[in-house]
Amino acid sequence: MTDGMASTEDDAAGRAVRTMVQTDTASSLLGIEVMLLEPGHVIMGMTVLDSMLNGHGICHGGYLFLLADSAFGAACNSVAGGAAAVASSCDVTFVAPARFGDVLQAEAVERLSFGRSGLFDVTVRRADGTVVVEFRGHSRRLPSAPSGSVAAS
Amino acid sequence: MTDGMASTEDDAAGRAVRTMVQTDTASSLLGIEVMLLEPGHVIMGMTVLDSMLNGHGICHGGYLFLLADSAFGAACNSVAGGAAAVASSCDVTFVAPARFGDVLQAEAVERLSFGRSGLFDVTVRRADGTVVVEFRGHSRRLPSAPSGSVAAS
Amino acid sequence: MTDGMASTEDDAAGRAVRTMVQTDTASSLLGIEVMLLEPGHVIMGMTVLDSMLNGHGICHGGYLFLLADSAFGAACNSVAGGAAAVASSCDVTFVAPARFGDVLQAEAVERLSFGRSGLFDVTVRRADGTVVVEFRGHSRRLPSAPSGSVAAS
Amino acid sequence: MTDGMASTEDDAAGRAVRTMVQTDTASSLLGIEVMLLEPGHVIMGMTVLDSMLNGHGICHGGYLFLLADSAFGAACNSVAGGAAAVASSCDVTFVAPARFGDVLQAEAVERLSFGRSGLFDVTVRRADGTVVVEFRGHSRRLPSAPSGSVAAS
Repeated sequence: MTDGMASTEDDAAGRAVRTMVQTDTASSLLGIEVMLLEPGHVIMGMTVLDSMLNGHGICHGGYLFLLADSAFGAACNSVAGGAAAVASSCDVTFVAPARFGDVLQAEAVERLSFGRSGLFDVTVRRADGTVVVEFRGHSRRLPSAPSGSVAAS
Repeated sequence: MTDGMASTEDDAAGRAVRTMVQTDTASSLLGIEVMLLEPGHVIMGMTVLDSMLNGHGICHGGYLFLLADSAFGAACNSVAGGAAAVASSCDVTFVAPARFGDVLQAEAVERLSFGRSGLFDVTVRRADGTVVVEFRGHSRRLPSAPSGSVAAS
Repeated sequence: MTDGMASTEDDAAGRAVRTMVQTDTASSLLGIEVMLLEPGHVIMGMTVLDSMLNGHGICHGGYLFLLADSAFGAACNSVAGGAAAVASSCDVTFVAPARFGDVLQAEAVERLSFGRSGLFDVTVRRADGTVVVEFRGHSRRLPSAPSGSVAAS
Repeated sequence: MTDGMASTEDDAAGRAVRTMVQTDTASSLLGIEVMLLEPGHVIMGMTVLDSMLNGHGICHGGYLFLLADSAFGAACNSVAGGAAAVASSCDVTFVAPARFGDVLQAEAVERLSFGRSGLFDVTVRRADGTVVVEFRGHSRRLPSAPSGSVAAS
């Protein structure tokens, strides 16, 4: 998860999110790659592995969520300001199944920022463009940004 | 993921959900265990592994979701009727972080069933009872239940 | 909207929520009545008027939401502490229609409190107990509680 | 609520949604007007009346929801196909308060259609463009479209 992150402007938010992404063991071990990392706009890719399949032989919804959540986490921390942001809540809609070998892309876009809160839309698509998941994430900036103090996702 | 599943009544729904859980590679590889499996009431356990940690050194929100979603998936398929149910959408609220080694339990309870739809509440707690995640899942029963035809999670 | 509010303990939160409810013009004009007002537990009633009907001749979803939201607003302000709380976001599921003359009750229950955040479940039922709406509200306490400074609902 | 509805193509969906909107007593009595009505894209306007104010002297969240929900209801029924669609669930985020006299516009846009389900985003803004509410609605098409059979909102 070390490629494609050249485009964020070289400010505090950019540096913080690059460090966050590069040290994300969970995403890295799943082969999640950053395709685009700009302020408020992130694309990540993941291939469905056989270790991700559920009892119906399709990708577990948890891994679809994890991909979307990783893109959301990077996007909400990529927005200028420098204070770390955390996911407070998310809504996810499962639109279509993903199967072994599917190459998925999650695109996260900032929809709105207000006060310390943010709203981001993430769409997960298969390579043919079919939507697999629609996700909306609520983020909240922490009062200050001590490294290592950030909550879930 | 083969323990603790004795309590579902031995009907079609019970058999189907036991098979679904036993063949869930994703949950099984993460060490997710079934603690309780009754119609409309499921408890699953998971220990936070170091492969689940994100860039802040805490459990990635995706794995917290995955645990809750697994309990939800079993619960919505455990309800009598025999037709397979799928997750259509979920809301998740991240309440507190989970750390390496934390032993988590996700408890899924059916809140409401109407038509082919269901509403389930899932709470993920640490061993000391602290709530980590609140999750609400919407399920939908398929018109029929051909094996292998089920959508995400 | 002046009855049934005796049960809140006579502290700052209780006084504040009673004032808030008594001066709620919107709820009052719709005939919404408080049936129970305890810390973290509120029941409000509303009869479906013909002015509430939509193009299908049933109660507009907006009025069902409004009833649930009023109960939520009172409940999240009824919890001890004294700082005003506001709705930040809500999820609502429409379960069954309500018709002209239906006597509805919305019951709001605190599910969880964490930091300055709260999570409340509200169920709207017809007189025969049929569930019409399930609602989950996220609240947030304001840093201080100056009167008149509170945001939407 | 009879203006501005010229732009829907004159098919079954267009006729059905125009009838639905014109006979919506609830929206009409609140002065809600249709500004734009195209397949998958609807704008409605509403001025905040003093009858809509809550105990904090600002517009009750229920009326903000009602406006968004009306635009959503028209939008999900404006999409070609002719079968009536109903709201199944909605998420609403309260971003900023609305005050007496504010002229609000709710813009509903279809995000995705899959099977009999639809996903719509609605944004409510003040005249100066400030976002007041972000709303996401899930719709579901009925198997057939008998008039008068439609559920909440």
